Amino acid sequence: MSVKLLTVKQDILGANDENAKANRERVDKHHVVMINVMSSPGAGKTTLITQTINKFKEKIRIAVVEGDISSTIDADKISTLGIPVVQINTGGTCHLDANMVRKALDSLPLGEIDVIIIENVGNLICTAEFALGAHKKVMLLSVPEGDDKPHKYPLMFTEADVVLVNKTDVMPYFDFDEAAFVKVVNGLNPSGKIFPVSAKTGEGLDAWFAWFEDAIVGKAGVA
Amino acid sequence: MSVKLLTVKQDILGANDENAKANRERVDKHHVVMINVMSSPGAGKTTLITQTINKFKEKIRIAVVEGDISSTIDADKISTLGIPVVQINTGGTCHLDANMVRKALDSLPLGEIDVIIIENVGNLICTAEFALGAHKKVMLLSVPEGDDKPHKYPLMFTEADVVLVNKTDVMPYFDFDEAAFVKVVNGLNPSGKIFPVSAKTGEGLDAWFAWFEDAIVGKAGVA
Repeated sequence: MSVKLLTVKQDILGANDENAKANRERVDKHHVVMINVMSSPGAGKTTLITQTINKFKEKIRIAVVEGDISSTIDADKISTLGIPVVQINTGGTCHLDANMVRKALDSLPLGEIDVIIIENVGNLICTAEFALGAHKKVMLLSVPEGDDKPHKYPLMFTEADVVLVNKTDVMPYFDFDEAAFVKVVNGLNPSGKIFPVSAKTGEGLDAWFAWFEDAIVGKAGVA
Repeated sequence: MSVKLLTVKQDILGANDENAKANRERVDKHHVVMINVMSSPGAGKTTLITQTINKFKEKIRIAVVEGDISSTIDADKISTLGIPVVQINTGGTCHLDANMVRKALDSLPLGEIDVIIIENVGNLICTAEFALGAHKKVMLLSVPEGDDKPHKYPLMFTEADVVLVNKTDVMPYFDFDEAAFVKVVNGLNPSGKIFPVSAKTGEGLDAWFAWFEDAIVGKAGVA
């Protein structure tokens, strides 16, 4: 059975890669930068995205695609910020795929957007396997999850352009060995950036904001 | 593509259910109770299992099956407790399936065991979909993940016999509305038990230990 499963999976991933390529070409045509944000459930993606929108909404035109199994909780939060939001409910599937993102792109005014931030389903595994067409992959690991996660879930840490170590405000209450964590992530992913932040308090977010702006300026319609 | 994916998934789930049934019959023949423990990455499964082994190892013969994408970190920790441990590395698959558990059963001395605790892969979604043949399903939600998770990941909360709200020792540092959480879980799963615990400090574990013992006594070879 395991061999059969693998074949099926490779077919699905192959078809997904084609859809992801089409998504990329489509957003490139509109000079839109697309960023895929991934993490475990409850690591702080929505809070990070909210802070990022509040920081940049006067000078960068941001839209958000929210991926969840069910509910519109996150989309409801983001929509209060007055920017375009699309909610995708996967109905059980544990990750977004490129076809779901294609449908989201259909309903966004691409000519009036500089950046699309995709908040993927809360999952440290499958989300890393499915390309969406995004230019950049950002992951959050929250301090309470523990410093051993790169050993257990290496693909996500290997693929990310940025690893945000979130919830540093509660660092004193957990046994999180930051030096050991950084060493393992550097080994898996020598070019990946690591930023310790608290999306809740704002601590450390300046480094993230600088990276975000740099990822966009010159690429999107932003001077 | 989404329809095709669904068909494939149903075939896989159908085959898995048959394997799960065979696993159940096999452990029943040996009077072994099997418990499937699930959560997000870093919610505290290994710490809970360690506490449970330390509490009961003099009177209940426990074995552990560890599921991870890669690494033997958790199995190494558990093996220091002097009980049988099998590590399954799924190599990318985001959940254990019944066939993987069948192989683990092959390497355990079933005639000398009362309980098998299966620590599933850290994932709040797919692990709930794949039956393993276990008699009981236990899930942990840790306080830092947030009280809104049952809205976003309803299947896991619906399926669990027990929901452990772990890391209550850090409750003061997070905005976790326990009453709201309990209300939603009760709505999804009226017969499910909810125990607030700190696997780290031991707070609240007595209720969990009582449930665990009750699940085993009379069913396994335990008086």
